[in-house]
Amino acid sequence: MKKFINAVEQVEDQMIQGMVKAYPQYLRKLDSGNIVVRSQKKEHKVALISGGGSGHEPAHGGYVGTGMLDAAVAGAVFTSPTPDQVYEGIKAVATDAGVLMIVKNYTGDVMNFEMAGEMAEIDGIAVKQVVVNDDVAVKDSLYTVGRRGVAGTVFVHKIAGALAETGADLDAVQAVAQKVINQVRTMGAAIRPCTVPAAGKPGFELSDTEMEVGIGIHGEPGTHREELKTADEITDMLLQHILDDFDYSGSEVAVMVNGAGATPLMELFIINNRIADVLAEKGIKVYKTFVGEYMTSIEMEGFSISLLKLDDQLKELLDAEADTPAFKA
Amino acid sequence: MKKFINAVEQVEDQMIQGMVKAYPQYLRKLDSGNIVVRSQKKEHKVALISGGGSGHEPAHGGYVGTGMLDAAVAGAVFTSPTPDQVYEGIKAVATDAGVLMIVKNYTGDVMNFEMAGEMAEIDGIAVKQVVVNDDVAVKDSLYTVGRRGVAGTVFVHKIAGALAETGADLDAVQAVAQKVINQVRTMGAAIRPCTVPAAGKPGFELSDTEMEVGIGIHGEPGTHREELKTADEITDMLLQHILDDFDYSGSEVAVMVNGAGATPLMELFIINNRIADVLAEKGIKVYKTFVGEYMTSIEMEGFSISLLKLDDQLKELLDAEADTPAFKA
Repeated sequence: MKKFINAVEQVEDQMIQGMVKAYPQYLRKLDSGNIVVRSQKKEHKVALISGGGSGHEPAHGGYVGTGMLDAAVAGAVFTSPTPDQVYEGIKAVATDAGVLMIVKNYTGDVMNFEMAGEMAEIDGIAVKQVVVNDDVAVKDSLYTVGRRGVAGTVFVHKIAGALAETGADLDAVQAVAQKVINQVRTMGAAIRPCTVPAAGKPGFELSDTEMEVGIGIHGEPGTHREELKTADEITDMLLQHILDDFDYSGSEVAVMVNGAGATPLMELFIINNRIADVLAEKGIKVYKTFVGEYMTSIEMEGFSISLLKLDDQLKELLDAEADTPAFKA
Repeated sequence: MKKFINAVEQVEDQMIQGMVKAYPQYLRKLDSGNIVVRSQKKEHKVALISGGGSGHEPAHGGYVGTGMLDAAVAGAVFTSPTPDQVYEGIKAVATDAGVLMIVKNYTGDVMNFEMAGEMAEIDGIAVKQVVVNDDVAVKDSLYTVGRRGVAGTVFVHKIAGALAETGADLDAVQAVAQKVINQVRTMGAAIRPCTVPAAGKPGFELSDTEMEVGIGIHGEPGTHREELKTADEITDMLLQHILDDFDYSGSEVAVMVNGAGATPLMELFIINNRIADVLAEKGIKVYKTFVGEYMTSIEMEGFSISLLKLDDQLKELLDAEADTPAFKA
C-alpha cells in the first residue's frame, strides 16, 4: 500500500487536524472527537450537520462555513460516526431554531444519526433530518436499503445551507433539502479502485481493460464490470441511466462532474464536454456546472455525473453566498 | 493506458472545450486555438497572460477571471504553446495599460513567450514578462536552464492579478509579480508517475516501496529515488530543502500543499498537519494555507509544498477578491 501517511491508525485524526490547521478561519475541532464546527457559531439560525465515514474529502468538513454546514462529523474511513459523536456535534451547533441532519443513505449512517437526533431531542433540541439517496445505479446495495447517497449530497448542503442562512425555519429548510433530494440523480464509474488504509488492499480488482460501472463512494464494487469504453460512450451510458430515472426534459439543471479522488481534471473536462453536448441536444438547459472533487473515495480513479433540476428558488439558493474551505460562491 | 479519454489526438481540444462549456460565465475560447480569455474583457487594466503545456489543470485556464489572469494559452500535454498561439492570446486581451506575461521557467515556454511578446510589441502593445522559478529541487533540469517554475506560479497569478485589478501600471504589476517570485520556494515528491496520453506509458517507473524526490510538473523523474518514508518524514525533508534555500525565519508565510493530480485530499491534509507543526516550532507564522490541486501533472500521485514570504502588501493582494473557476477569494 503506497500512501502518504504515517500510521494506519492515525489517518483520520491527522487528516482532521491538518484540515483544521489549514482553515482556522473557518473550522474548529471539538475536543471530543473528529467533529468540526464553524469557528464562529451563528445563533438563531437552523444549524446544519452532516458527516459520515472519512475518505470522502473535502466532504464533509470542507463544507463547513457560511452558507453551508455548521458541523461535520467524521467516522473512521468509510465507517459511520457513532451516535455519541453525532450527538456531540449537534449539541455544539444547536440553536433555538433547531438542527437539520443531512444524512447519506447508508444503514449505519441513518441508524446512528437517528439515535443521535433522539438523544438531542431529550435535551430539548428540535431535530429533523433528510436522507439523501441520489445514486440511480442500485436499488439496494451492500450497505443500504434503497439507493445510496452520493455526490448529490453537496447540492443539498449548498441549497439548504443557503436557505438556513436567510433565517428560514426548520420546516422550510428541511423542505428545500428534500426538494433537492427529490430532483437530483447521480451515477458513476471507475477504472481504478481505492485502498482503505486499514484494509491495506484495494476494494476490488480490475484488469487493464475493465471498468466498474455503478460505483458507490465506499470503495465497494459497482453494479457490474464492462470493457473500458471511450469517455463519450461512458458518459452517454451514465447520462442515459440518469435521464431514464427522472424526467429532466425542458428543465434547467445544475451539473456536477465529480472526481472520485485520482481522476485528473483533464478527463473530467473531457467528460463535461460530452455532457454539455448531450444535454444541449436534448433541450435540457445547463444553468451552472461544477467540475472537481466534491465527494471522493480516497484515491479511486473514477467519476460521477449528477443532474439537479432547478427552479427559481433553487437557482437563487445555489447562487447565494457560500464561504467554506472547499466551496465558495 | 487507462484513461477517460476518446482519442489521444483529441485530448487537449476536448479538455479545453469541456472547461469552457463548464464555465461560460468566466471563459471564452478563441477560434484560433486552445486559448481561453475572460468572457468579459476588462479595458484599461494591465492584462495578465500565462500558460504552458496542458496537463496541469486547473492551471492555467482555471485561473482566468476577475483578480487573476486575462488569458491562458494551452499547448499540447506538457508541450509549450507556439509563439503564434501566445501572440493571439496577447492580442485578444491587450489594453492600453499593457500586458504582463507570467512564464514558468522552461526553455520552450520562455522562448515562445518571448517571441510572442516581440511580435506584439511590433503591433505597439506594451509587453513585459516575469519568469517563475520556484522549484528548489534542481539547479538545472532536462527542460530548463536554472530552476523550474512549478506550483508557486499560482501565487504569482493571484497577487499580480489582484494588483492589476486595482488599475496599477505595468511596471508596478511586474514588480509585485517579481517580488512573489523572489519570495516563493517549492519542492515535491511522488509515489506514482503519470502517463502522457500521446506517450502511452508512464514517464518513469517506481517499485512498490520507492518514491521519487524533487519531481517537476512534466512527468519527468525527480532528482533521485528513495525508499518511501512516512508522510511526516517526507514533509520534513521537503520543508528542510525549502528552508535551507530561503530565510523564512520570523516571517509570515502563505503555504500551498499542492496535489499532483491523483493524491487524495486526505493525504494532503496529513501532510499539512506536519507542515503546520514544523513551521510553528520554527517560529514561522502561517497567514493562510491552500490545500488542493492547483498545478497538477495529469494523474501523478505526489505533492509539492510551497512557502511564500508575505508582507502587508502581499497579504492584502492575496486576500483581495478573486473570482475564477478554480480560485475564489
